[in-house]
Amino acid sequence: MSEADPHARVRLDMSGEVVRVRLDISYDGSDFAGWATQPGQRTVQATIEDALRMVLRVDGAALTVAGRTDAGVHATGQVAHFDVSMSAWEALGTTLVRRLAGVLHPDVRVHEARIVPAEFDARFGALWRRYVYCISDRESGVDPLTRGFVLSWPRPLDVETMNAAAQRLVGLHDYVAFCRWREGATTIRTVQEFTVRREQDLVTCSVRADAFCHSMVRSLVGSLLAVGEGRHDVDWPASLLLATSRSDHVAVAPAHGLTLVEVRYPPDDELAARTEQTRARRT
Amino acid sequence: MSEADPHARVRLDMSGEVVRVRLDISYDGSDFAGWATQPGQRTVQATIEDALRMVLRVDGAALTVAGRTDAGVHATGQVAHFDVSMSAWEALGTTLVRRLAGVLHPDVRVHEARIVPAEFDARFGALWRRYVYCISDRESGVDPLTRGFVLSWPRPLDVETMNAAAQRLVGLHDYVAFCRWREGATTIRTVQEFTVRREQDLVTCSVRADAFCHSMVRSLVGSLLAVGEGRHDVDWPASLLLATSRSDHVAVAPAHGLTLVEVRYPPDDELAARTEQTRARRT
Repeated sequence: MSEADPHARVRLDMSGEVVRVRLDISYDGSDFAGWATQPGQRTVQATIEDALRMVLRVDGAALTVAGRTDAGVHATGQVAHFDVSMSAWEALGTTLVRRLAGVLHPDVRVHEARIVPAEFDARFGALWRRYVYCISDRESGVDPLTRGFVLSWPRPLDVETMNAAAQRLVGLHDYVAFCRWREGATTIRTVQEFTVRREQDLVTCSVRADAFCHSMVRSLVGSLLAVGEGRHDVDWPASLLLATSRSDHVAVAPAHGLTLVEVRYPPDDELAARTEQTRARRT
Repeated sequence: MSEADPHARVRLDMSGEVVRVRLDISYDGSDFAGWATQPGQRTVQATIEDALRMVLRVDGAALTVAGRTDAGVHATGQVAHFDVSMSAWEALGTTLVRRLAGVLHPDVRVHEARIVPAEFDARFGALWRRYVYCISDRESGVDPLTRGFVLSWPRPLDVETMNAAAQRLVGLHDYVAFCRWREGATTIRTVQEFTVRREQDLVTCSVRADAFCHSMVRSLVGSLLAVGEGRHDVDWPASLLLATSRSDHVAVAPAHGLTLVEVRYPPDDELAARTEQTRARRT
């Protein structure tokens, strides 16, 4: 059995029956080198796959994830799936979540684990992802208990203008100016909602899209920070949508202010159609 | 000038005029050995006093505080005062908060600094203090981003019964069963409000009193946890109010779930009367 093929054990299972399991995951990204497994690095994916292997007593559990978050980015609503033999699943029954809680470090939690239809695909089946980016512009600095997930900004931000600029970024566009280049990846996305709100000194940017390309949310927020400070006018971020390559003028906001908060899927009977549609569009 | 008398420089100031300054303070208690200065330990008091000395260029600034929080306890609404020469204060003008932000570690913030009447006393002038204690009873564990200030409780809590038990602890009582003994300190207090509420898996205990004795909030919460799990009935915490010494049966809840969130003072023209009244009662 090759280490490179974590599904091998599943396929060899005597019963032959395989189930697909959905995981709902939260993590503090501070001490992770991002979601995706990288040799020699502590990543969320490898951490959870190791825990699943240990708890389910299988040779491997390969996770497919909704949002491949970067180093330092957090999640309260991450979703992933993996396939496992029915016999391994049934041996644990409903105790998987509790057992994972016992073996995982407190900076990552699997809040739910449940069987989903075989057509469920955490990555290609998602209707949309929502991220929030939190900033405090209090002169004295961000409140200590929230400093792990709130960016401290030393100058006052004009939130109304930031929100107006965010509205102009909504729609179906080529967001290439806001994306780090990745071989073969499209940068055309639909931003469905983008708002900036203030509650006392806490400024929250909430953005929802069918999907995001690499570093897109942090670049969008970076452009809004320039507007909020008055370094650029309200139309500037949207004007970058006309660009044909990544903009050098957009600063990428730091990772620790960003959290993946929600991923939405269609009802079960529409799962297969959605996955098919997304795969076709991305290739 | 003796190191033991931090007011010395103030008294020697040429102008002779001294002002009282109120500080509004937040901290993440995780890496502090509590508020009060202890030799060889990192404490909130010594950290802020050092920063004030550096920024104000005075030989000393002695803080008087509303709530002497224990090691690991947090604050979002701590209040302290100190006296400083008018000339030192005026040299900084309104930049004190920004300068302190620059020298303090991000786990402690001084959000406001302003001159108050000489009758203002952060400790004896307070009408009441409010603490919150946060618990998550989700089987999978507390959400990672909040794990620094939320206690993870592995079994489901009956919040309605906890709240009913909390109601019976309200009033003017001798809380000696819930207090760690301190030489000469009274354990008679007025608990003005004590509620337990649930929002999804987050259980918040909020308690307001004229003042608290040592470890009182964590002991009160410890007794409610026993009720919430069904180990004791709803009347048990209030029955301990009849005790004449500290109860061995009450577990002290861990420090990291506790936060001092608010301290309330009377209007300026009632400050002196309040301080006088409190001092008289405590001695």
